[in-house]
Formats: sequence, structure tokens, C-alpha cells
Amino acid sequence: MNMTIGVDVGGTNIVCGATDGQGRVLRKLKRQTEAWAGHEAVLARIADMVEEIREALGNDYRAVGVGVGVPGLVDPLAGVSKFAGNLKWRDVPVASLLERRIGLPVFIDNDVRMYVYGEAVSGAGRGYRHVLGITIGTGIAAAIVNGGELYYGHQAMAGEIGHVRMDGVEEQCACGLSGCLETVASASGMVRQAKKALRAGRESLLAERFPGDELEKLTAADLSQAMDDGDALASEILVRAGRLTGRALAAAAMVLSPDAIIVGGGGALAGERLLGPLREELYGLLLPDFREGLRVVTAEHNDDAGIIGSSLYAAYRNGA
Amino acid sequence: MNMTIGVDVGGTNIVCGATDGQGRVLRKLKRQTEAWAGHEAVLARIADMVEEIREALGNDYRAVGVGVGVPGLVDPLAGVSKFAGNLKWRDVPVASLLERRIGLPVFIDNDVRMYVYGEAVSGAGRGYRHVLGITIGTGIAAAIVNGGELYYGHQAMAGEIGHVRMDGVEEQCACGLSGCLETVASASGMVRQAKKALRAGRESLLAERFPGDELEKLTAADLSQAMDDGDALASEILVRAGRLTGRALAAAAMVLSPDAIIVGGGGALAGERLLGPLREELYGLLLPDFREGLRVVTAEHNDDAGIIGSSLYAAYRNGA
Repeated sequence: MNMTIGVDVGGTNIVCGATDGQGRVLRKLKRQTEAWAGHEAVLARIADMVEEIREALGNDYRAVGVGVGVPGLVDPLAGVSKFAGNLKWRDVPVASLLERRIGLPVFIDNDVRMYVYGEAVSGAGRGYRHVLGITIGTGIAAAIVNGGELYYGHQAMAGEIGHVRMDGVEEQCACGLSGCLETVASASGMVRQAKKALRAGRESLLAERFPGDELEKLTAADLSQAMDDGDALASEILVRAGRLTGRALAAAAMVLSPDAIIVGGGGALAGERLLGPLREELYGLLLPDFREGLRVVTAEHNDDAGIIGSSLYAAYRNGA
Repeated sequence: MNMTIGVDVGGTNIVCGATDGQGRVLRKLKRQTEAWAGHEAVLARIADMVEEIREALGNDYRAVGVGVGVPGLVDPLAGVSKFAGNLKWRDVPVASLLERRIGLPVFIDNDVRMYVYGEAVSGAGRGYRHVLGITIGTGIAAAIVNGGELYYGHQAMAGEIGHVRMDGVEEQCACGLSGCLETVASASGMVRQAKKALRAGRESLLAERFPGDELEKLTAADLSQAMDDGDALASEILVRAGRLTGRALAAAAMVLSPDAIIVGGGGALAGERLLGPLREELYGLLLPDFREGLRVVTAEHNDDAGIIGSSLYAAYRNGA
């Protein structure tokens, strides 16, 4: 049987896994990225991991392609990582360098596009034709899978919903703009707001739980916990993040008419604390016909989403 | 040589024209719609107009398909006009009824999608790959042509940018929502705001030019004229409409990454009065890479845009 291999290259770890045509994970591996060693060393490590998986499954499955999800700006047709800040890569021809080492067709793309592709095809988006997927993590980004086809746009830059300007948001964004959705609605944005409020002396359960320098350890999960324990600050931050995300999604949905919006990434672990307000705002802003035809669903693949997405993406680009 | 025939069905007039493969108009006709006579009478009239054009061009061109642009909600695959308020049509199977009369493949779609398709392929969008087109008229709507392909979305409802909620806009929209872009930025929306301000006693050149009941005759063109003559009210309305449209387009552009935004429809006749503020707001809200890769252009086909679009659309759907 044929298999494809998906690779998710993060700043800390590389995860590599093989899936069958239905996106079932056959085997996976995880190694440290050690990006400081330079891109050749990272690519050599990826090639070793792919080889290891092929050897382990070689009697039952034939590898026909490799998909590599890279953070940052990617040219998927040229196979080049144009800029990946946390890897310190700039204009690295990942696909051709890896093909030389591996001897299989290699396809690369932005990690968000691959994540959403995997969810659309074999996860929460199964059965939907017009999927808009959003990942909430350090930043917020989106991808569109329409009739099974990824939407790229000019220079494959489509999906930057995290940098849509939101009214009432004043925060400066790392991108140079201000008021970007992700400054307040990403997991990091929510944590940043909580820290700011706590440093300014705001009363909160979080102030007791993270006294002094402990505050640096605060995560988005702690916000969820505090909200469940009745904390007003945590609730305000999560509800506002959900509402603003719902508002940005409503504008996108009116233009795109998706039948499913998939919400994923670490931020989605907040569940209904975030998704409740998100849905309420979203549905309140949609025309009736849009409201009826659209479902908001949460991503299903969790930790494996990256490798499943890039593996299925390899099959997609490979025409397999 | 092959030709296709495009039909633009409006509440007042039907325009019918033939084009060659490049979208050059070979011949066109205009008749009153007389929608009160019912859809069968209107479709019989369209069939007569198509026949007249075929007879006139029959020695040189062979008609291979007909495209019909219908206002309102259309199911393009089923060929059904689901709801067209100004024609009083509901669930009219336009394509099959016309095919029976004409004996050619008939394709129908929403008039905005056809307008934008024509502009994208043979008008202001020539040479661009990822086109977002917007028409500013009685309402505001958009269409997406990506790599030569129209984007439909669920139930072919994509493009409702006119109903995106804009902050600071309070007007009730006919759609049932409030704060919709088109309530203040469509041609009718701009005229409505001017009338409201004038009735409330606002000083303006327009008060002198349209005294008393004359006010009913005010058009968007009069606002442009007054703005050129230094009128503050007209200027405020046009500038605000441009800025709000730019803002809605920025949100769409960040998600879609178009390389061209085409602005068309009657409202685009305001030219730089509207487009200046539109561009300024739009470019101010885009990430640098998006800013560099995106041009805002005005539609080129003017009065023929409807028939050129629906004619080229027939070729597109026909696989011609």
C-alpha cells in the first residue's frame, strides 16, 4: 500500500509521521530541531527520520511523497522557505535539498495551511465542501479548502486573518500594524493581556496563583482554569478574544460562504469558554442564509494535526 | 468562428449581446424587461433577442452558448433563479426554460459574479491571477476569480461584502442586520445619507440645488458634482464611503491575498473622490507584503460589463 510522510518543523521539535490515504497515522517520531546547527543539519535530521520510518514500515507500505510544514512565509510551488523567524531560515530551497537526500517528491507549505488541509480532509471538516480553518496559537492564521482545493492567493499569502484590524483594539502588533486580531485573541495575546492587567494591580485569582516572578509562567490553560473558578479577569479576556475572533470570522464568512469553520491550535483547547462567545458574535453578524448553512467545529487531530496535514498534503500535491 | 451570447436581466431593461472569445462585443440589443408580465414572457423576450442576434451574425459566427446574469440569489449549477426581488422571481428554472426555447446551452449566475468575471478575464483584471471584484450600486457585492476560476462557496453565496458589519455604522439594512457596509457606502446609501442630512437642515450646496420635493431627484452623480464644487456634506459622505469600503476590502484582502481589486458598478463613477480614501484606508491596513503585491483598478467595460461578463461566463461554463 502507498503511504505519504508528513513532517512538522517547529522551533523546538521536528515531528515526522507516515499516514495512509485516509490520514491514519501509521508511525511517528519526534526529535529536537536544534535549529542553531543551521538548515543543512536540520534537513539531514529530517531525512534520517523519514528513512527510519520507511525502514520500519517498508514491508507493508511504499512511501510515495513527503510533505513538510514550515512556519512563516513559504513559496509552495518553488518549494522554498522564504522566511521562518524561529528557524532562522531565509530563502532555503527545502524541497529540492530534501529531494536530493530522500529520493522522493517533497512538497512544502506553510504549517497552518497543512494543518487546516488535514482537518478539512480527514478531521473536523469531513463532509463539508467549503472549509475555512483558523488556528489560534502564538498567532492567528487561517486557510481555505474549497471543494478539496487549497486556496493560496497572490504569493501564497492568503490566510492572514490574525492581522485584520479590529475596532477597539489598540495594541501594537509585532508585524508593525496595530489593532491586529492576534494581539488580543491569540493564546499569547490573551496571556499578554492578563500579565499586563495583573502587573497593573488588577485583582484576580491569577494574582494569588502567580505571585511576583511566577507570573512569567502563566499560560492560556491557566486562564481557562481561572475562568472556571469564577475569575472575572480571565473571563473578560477569553470572552473578548472569542467575540473578536467571531467578528473577524463573520467578515470572512460573508465573503467566502464556508459551510464549516474549523477552530484549531492550542487556543482552541479553551473550548466553549472561547467558542461560546465566538459563535454568538459570528452568528449574530451573518445573513440568515449564511447562518443556517454554517457550522463551527473544533479541530480533531490534536497533537497529530501537523503530521496528518502535511502527509495528506503530500498526497494532494503528488496527485496520489 | 464561435461566439457566445450574454444577457443582463435588470428590473427595467434586458441587454443582450454577442462577444467573441476575447470579449469583444459583436452586436447588442436592449429591450424593456416588463417584468409585470411574468417570467415566461420575460424569458420569451430573451429568446427572441438571442434569435435576432444569431440571425444578424449567423453568416460569420456560430453561437455556442448563452449566459444570463440575474440579480439576487441564484443556484448556478441547477440553473435556477432562487429569488430576484425586482423581477418578482422565485425558484424560476431559467436555464432549462431558456434552453428549451433557444436550443443552446444556457448558464445563469448572479449578475455581480458575471460582471466581475468579465472584468477579471477581459477588462481591468487582465494580467492578474487573484482578483477580488466589488460592485458599488444599489447595494455592494463582490466576487472572486482565482486563477481564472470563479469562487462560489456554500450555496454559491460568496461575495456578500456589502453586509459586513462596520463599526460606527448604525443604519438598519434592508437585509435585517444593521451597520452593513452598503447602508452607507453603496450609491443608494450615499444618496440616502445626503437626503437625511438635508432634511435635518444641514447646510449644503445640495440644499440649494434640490429644494423641497426636488430632493427626490438627487443621485450619486450630484454628490460627486457637489464635492467638486467644494461642498462639505458631499465630501464627507463620499470620503466616509470610500474609507469604509477600503476597510472592508482590507479584511477580505488579508484573508484572500488578491493581486488586484477591481472596483466597478455605478458608484465607481465617483472615481478618485471615492477611490482615493478607499486606497488610503486599504493600504494603511495591509501587511507590507500585501501592500506591494496589490493594485486597485477600476472596471473598464462600463455599460457593456454585464453582457461581456455573462457572455464570457457562458464560454467558461461551456468549457469553450
